[in-house]
Amino acid sequence: MTEIVLPNDINGLGNLMGGRLLYLMDKCAAISAQRHANMVCVTASVDSVEFKSPIYQNEVVVIESWVNRAFRTSMEVELRVVAENPLDQTSRLCNRAYYTFVGLNDEGIPTPVPAIHPETDDERHNYESAAKRREVRLLLSGRLSLNDAKHIKEDILATMTASE
Amino acid sequence: MTEIVLPNDINGLGNLMGGRLLYLMDKCAAISAQRHANMVCVTASVDSVEFKSPIYQNEVVVIESWVNRAFRTSMEVELRVVAENPLDQTSRLCNRAYYTFVGLNDEGIPTPVPAIHPETDDERHNYESAAKRREVRLLLSGRLSLNDAKHIKEDILATMTASE
Amino acid sequence: MTEIVLPNDINGLGNLMGGRLLYLMDKCAAISAQRHANMVCVTASVDSVEFKSPIYQNEVVVIESWVNRAFRTSMEVELRVVAENPLDQTSRLCNRAYYTFVGLNDEGIPTPVPAIHPETDDERHNYESAAKRREVRLLLSGRLSLNDAKHIKEDILATMTASE
Amino acid sequence: MTEIVLPNDINGLGNLMGGRLLYLMDKCAAISAQRHANMVCVTASVDSVEFKSPIYQNEVVVIESWVNRAFRTSMEVELRVVAENPLDQTSRLCNRAYYTFVGLNDEGIPTPVPAIHPETDDERHNYESAAKRREVRLLLSGRLSLNDAKHIKEDILATMTASE
Amino acid sequence: MTEIVLPNDINGLGNLMGGRLLYLMDKCAAISAQRHANMVCVTASVDSVEFKSPIYQNEVVVIESWVNRAFRTSMEVELRVVAENPLDQTSRLCNRAYYTFVGLNDEGIPTPVPAIHPETDDERHNYESAAKRREVRLLLSGRLSLNDAKHIKEDILATMTASE
Amino acid sequence: MTEIVLPNDINGLGNLMGGRLLYLMDKCAAISAQRHANMVCVTASVDSVEFKSPIYQNEVVVIESWVNRAFRTSMEVELRVVAENPLDQTSRLCNRAYYTFVGLNDEGIPTPVPAIHPETDDERHNYESAAKRREVRLLLSGRLSLNDAKHIKEDILATMTASE
Repeated sequence: MTEIVLPNDINGLGNLMGGRLLYLMDKCAAISAQRHANMVCVTASVDSVEFKSPIYQNEVVVIESWVNRAFRTSMEVELRVVAENPLDQTSRLCNRAYYTFVGLNDEGIPTPVPAIHPETDDERHNYESAAKRREVRLLLSGRLSLNDAKHIKEDILATMTASE
Repeated sequence: MTEIVLPNDINGLGNLMGGRLLYLMDKCAAISAQRHANMVCVTASVDSVEFKSPIYQNEVVVIESWVNRAFRTSMEVELRVVAENPLDQTSRLCNRAYYTFVGLNDEGIPTPVPAIHPETDDERHNYESAAKRREVRLLLSGRLSLNDAKHIKEDILATMTASE
Repeated sequence: MTEIVLPNDINGLGNLMGGRLLYLMDKCAAISAQRHANMVCVTASVDSVEFKSPIYQNEVVVIESWVNRAFRTSMEVELRVVAENPLDQTSRLCNRAYYTFVGLNDEGIPTPVPAIHPETDDERHNYESAAKRREVRLLLSGRLSLNDAKHIKEDILATMTASE
Repeated sequence: MTEIVLPNDINGLGNLMGGRLLYLMDKCAAISAQRHANMVCVTASVDSVEFKSPIYQNEVVVIESWVNRAFRTSMEVELRVVAENPLDQTSRLCNRAYYTFVGLNDEGIPTPVPAIHPETDDERHNYESAAKRREVRLLLSGRLSLNDAKHIKEDILATMTASE
Repeated sequence: MTEIVLPNDINGLGNLMGGRLLYLMDKCAAISAQRHANMVCVTASVDSVEFKSPIYQNEVVVIESWVNRAFRTSMEVELRVVAENPLDQTSRLCNRAYYTFVGLNDEGIPTPVPAIHPETDDERHNYESAAKRREVRLLLSGRLSLNDAKHIKEDILATMTASE
Repeated sequence: MTEIVLPNDINGLGNLMGGRLLYLMDKCAAISAQRHANMVCVTASVDSVEFKSPIYQNEVVVIESWVNRAFRTSMEVELRVVAENPLDQTSRLCNRAYYTFVGLNDEGIPTPVPAIHPETDDERHNYESAAKRREVRLLLSGRLSLNDAKHIKEDILATMTASE
């Protein structure tokens, strides 16, 4: 997804409002989720979006997104936002985020979506780490106890051991 | 902030698109941050937004936001989104989220913002837990090691002990 | 209802266009009317809106509205518009207006709405003066003769006597 | 000014929202005022807009406006709104209203605008009645006492005499 | 159709974006086509739009359109775009274009539209030249061979003879 | 550029309005032109856009564009529009068009842009045919006589000979 930053998208300092970017990212991620699932997909959660670099009026925003992993009825979609200054050919990474989408059938009921089969090393890495991030999400929302979060516990123990 | 859900805000199943809500939440949180800081504030990060209940066309979205805690140049803003069906007087909690904003001076440089002095029990609770959430954010973005995350370590140890 | 004034909302002199504010006021008043009536409400008339003070880009517009009085199928909604400069904490009253809404049932037919029972002195004052404003509206639109406008005649006679 | 009613312009019953129409009317009236005054013109007040007939999605809204009279720095602009159903060639009058605009110079100071010289009978009638409507506006906003409102007093006396 | 150029309509150099004007022209032409055909009309093609003069923020865009000729189910609509500077009373022709619309019945099937009967010399000229432009369109899209394009062949031969 | 078709983008028959697509195409083509020229580029003309297949609400519009050839200060940008139904994985070509853009320097003066050096067979074909299309454009706008349009004359003679 590619967009030009227009006057109405900017705040008092002349750069793209965070909320406007979150809106574009959501549309882009929804397209990736729907292409994978072949059904209507709705946003279930948004995680740890960090705004690293301001984006200015008339710059071009390029948003890439792909599905890292499908759980039963949900998918983790990863996004990467790059801003391009069309006048001097430079571009910079501005944002990286994870959105979770749920596939819905015609009555709006959550419905199983096809699994992802990672092929490259990158894809396998994203696939594995998606499971950890899901544990963090469930933990933070109180739907998983730390005791049952096996990936996280392994990580914490490894980190604690390493840092002793 | 109060808004009516219009046709252009909805997806193929007739409910408010997640991205549109993220946009409204960002505008609302920015107003809270700017009222507290008396300067232009930009979105620095967005955390663990969970979409609990769909919101339908013609419903009224009521978004409340307030500043939980100011760190040096940043503030944690908490948001609560309620949807009202104006025709049958019912309303339901749809969303709860934390946005982090940074105050900027006229040259766009991050600038210290006034501290928050919590007064009620609720405010004190939000103030304390904001520090923990900040550690999680810094940890996830790789800017804090688990070893230095003292609130989190205390919590993990307490949880692990409790669950043994 | 709270809104930030964006670039597309302003005219050639850098302030909020009157028509854009009328649009926001209408949405806000419609929410008040629908909350009172529990049915779809449509704008029937707009009265004597006066624009007292310009509102600038990046300011925050706060619109409050409430139902003063219900007639059979219509309601008078009063609005108060305040502009806030989030950078210096000042705010000023910019606008005060009365909108009339009509409640409609599912077929779009005007339908009786619940009465208002004023409780405070302010509410009683608004309730009484709403009846006078309604006479003025009906008089101006030719649906009431001056002879039948009893509140207005009393007022005029009182004023004329006082000014003699 | 001619517009098609799009999905986002309509309320829950499928017809054009009053606020959206007020916005279009304001843009149209501003063009008339600016053509007459050759300077930026801003909305000063809006009077007694009555919504006579709903306007539906896909209909064509035709808004006509013209300047009835210029006072020192302000002008009364009259508007007439017609809705056309393009499929069956019918059209109907939906709305008639008066907006008052003020001409501003480059510093935003109210500035004298050229006088109107009515030529036809219609124009003369509009010119005369504009003075009366202005008295009503000033009276209602408390900036004119009934004693100084000579057109209105004449009218009231005439009406009272006639109705005795 | 009359519109004011707002901040969000302009590009990095402060003038109206071509795409925004194409959008307004399409809405205007659709209204002309629907008024003639009394049915829903959709854009079939757009020809040789030339942007002669930039249009600036706060200027007024006036778009006129009319149906030159109806073929069986399609119509050629001609457009003329004028920009007015409301502050110095000047106006200039900015754009001239031809859009082709097709009339559709309720199932979305192309449907015959009424013929045009030109009356003035101008109308007759537009009517005749519309046939030539249609040949060019069909030729360029490969749906007509040069051999069957009788108006064009006549013109080419005339021009070649003249230029020998 | 990728976009979801929202309710406000559609006409009375439920499909994407031509004008809305022309707007998206213009933004997409402008990005291609600016990436090539490294300066602000404005639309100079639009040619023979044909709408082959309607696009429906909730479908995904994918627009691709690239620069075929640079003339002195102008560039021909080709566009290809595909609509995807995300629910059944099908996609279809809906539109193909040529836009001409002109590069402008900071004062808004047309400025030479870098040449295109075609490498593949496809690129060479597009490069050659761009010159012919430019002759057609200049011819149609009366800025080139048929006598000087050497590519067209060759083509016409070839076609006439072939068809004899």
